[in-house]
Amino acid sequence: MASVSRVLNGLPATGEMVERVQRAVEELGYVPDARARSLKVGRTFQLTLAVADVGNPVYVTMMRAVEEVVSAAGYRLVVTTTGPDVVDEVALVRGMARGYADGLVISPLRVDDDLIKSIRECDVPVVVAGNVPASAGVDTVRANSPKGMLLAVEHLLATGRKRIAFVNGPVDTVPGTARAKGFADAMKASGLRAVAEVEAVDFTFAAGREAGVELLSGLDIGVRGSGAEARGGRPGAEARGGRLDAVIAANDLLAVGIMHELAARELVVPDDVAVIGMDDSELAEQCFPPLTSVNLGSAERGRRAAELLLARIDDDTRAPRRIVVQPTLSVRKSTP
Amino acid sequence: MASVSRVLNGLPATGEMVERVQRAVEELGYVPDARARSLKVGRTFQLTLAVADVGNPVYVTMMRAVEEVVSAAGYRLVVTTTGPDVVDEVALVRGMARGYADGLVISPLRVDDDLIKSIRECDVPVVVAGNVPASAGVDTVRANSPKGMLLAVEHLLATGRKRIAFVNGPVDTVPGTARAKGFADAMKASGLRAVAEVEAVDFTFAAGREAGVELLSGLDIGVRGSGAEARGGRPGAEARGGRLDAVIAANDLLAVGIMHELAARELVVPDDVAVIGMDDSELAEQCFPPLTSVNLGSAERGRRAAELLLARIDDDTRAPRRIVVQPTLSVRKSTP
Repeated sequence: MASVSRVLNGLPATGEMVERVQRAVEELGYVPDARARSLKVGRTFQLTLAVADVGNPVYVTMMRAVEEVVSAAGYRLVVTTTGPDVVDEVALVRGMARGYADGLVISPLRVDDDLIKSIRECDVPVVVAGNVPASAGVDTVRANSPKGMLLAVEHLLATGRKRIAFVNGPVDTVPGTARAKGFADAMKASGLRAVAEVEAVDFTFAAGREAGVELLSGLDIGVRGSGAEARGGRPGAEARGGRLDAVIAANDLLAVGIMHELAARELVVPDDVAVIGMDDSELAEQCFPPLTSVNLGSAERGRRAAELLLARIDDDTRAPRRIVVQPTLSVRKSTP
Repeated sequence: MASVSRVLNGLPATGEMVERVQRAVEELGYVPDARARSLKVGRTFQLTLAVADVGNPVYVTMMRAVEEVVSAAGYRLVVTTTGPDVVDEVALVRGMARGYADGLVISPLRVDDDLIKSIRECDVPVVVAGNVPASAGVDTVRANSPKGMLLAVEHLLATGRKRIAFVNGPVDTVPGTARAKGFADAMKASGLRAVAEVEAVDFTFAAGREAGVELLSGLDIGVRGSGAEARGGRPGAEARGGRLDAVIAANDLLAVGIMHELAARELVVPDDVAVIGMDDSELAEQCFPPLTSVNLGSAERGRRAAELLLARIDDDTRAPRRIVVQPTLSVRKSTP
């Protein structure tokens, strides 16, 4: 019967099983109406993942991980986009009361009291993949951006780069706030001062290119080859005045946008300027040169969030958990 | 009342409207249960887009376009992944009978009689973004791959490249079949014979790298610079024996995978080997050098599919439409 239910609910099953069930269903003329059924059993076998932008490859990594966990548990995952505005996030969470899914994982770009209130009042379990205050009393899985920033700065220092610029996304977002603080702390701990800081208008490739223009037009970065030559004797690094020798970007899309602006000025990555992204998305491996990137554990965060959601569906009385996933650095060819 | 309904259904509305409605709802203690309501009115205000792989950037372009059209009409779009197997596509379509969405746009990688049967019998309107026979009697929007292939081959010929290899995805898929035939026809029309043809195991970046290894290990492609030198006098092109001077890939992910294998062998794009992708996805712009790519109109196909779905929801008696979107070529720096 479990198999029959899986087939009728459009969930993964073997080809043979699907055929047998479908033959039986046709003979009996039976089609379940889940809207009616879910009124009784309260289950839709569908879970929702809400992300700010399906086009950001960091969410693709997270989606794949969430899907793996929930489909193994017999659920279908559907993904929806909230966009960057908190009002749309709140509308989505309130809309969950309609009962089209048994639970929600939301990765909000912006958080306010309304959002927290809507999550607490939501009829179905909600897990936040992001940072909300402990007082909210909800299950959360979040990254450790400050630690990630420290890994990036320490890697640059260890490879002789000290003239570091930082390109952040909007600082009024959850990741923007965390990464700004993380960068400031990491630079302080390393005894460095930023060569420049730019705030991009969004966490997108286009915003990265714009930020690259702003960053590079304001700095004496020399022309192709000069950086590499000047660095021939590594100790000379500090004597290069305003020259930039590394950029840390707040995500991979921003980093790749900046790499295009460096190339447009005939600056070679990493010889002239090293570049580090964050998220370690599929794009980091696909871009050229492949991008060194801080892995903030998006796959593990997805897995853990899915597990918390399943556990919460199973037992809504358990105490809220707050999980922090630790970062690692994926070193590729965009740093020396 | 339309606004109230939009807010309660979690659909886009102005911030002020959301606040007013939410205050009223709190005062009245009213929460609509859409499972109960949809039994009466038969509407969920939710539409589903089913794609083979959310990680393929071509679907991101399509998703954005579908979402724009359906959200303007007051629907929320949810996206779900079928994977590459037809049995999972069929299970999804049959699962739509559960009534969690008012309609479905499906972009199937593989099509068989079972899938067509499930679409015809589906309780909610289904539009296929892909190629199914006219006899199926369903609304379809499809690309013109053969015309796209012709644009790619003609562009290479016009820029002096005649020693062309083709890397396809699996030929037992809808796009794989269309692109294989399109490539053969375009080469024949141009009086050319392929230097090599490789079938990748999937339409992914990883499969592109594997196909690149297979392609390049089997060919005399010389070392960095030699190709460009030999081409100094363009007429010499045909005298280069087995040497490859261009690759057409069946999508952008495959093309970028191949570019990495070219780089690993110190072959410069486009000086030594020109590369053309298909789909003109966001990745084509992001990769380096930016990728010349056949735009198969994924955004327009998404828009048209969404419009067909809305029209079909409005009037289920209208005759099925079959729309073909024509391709264009986006020329970037991966071709001379």
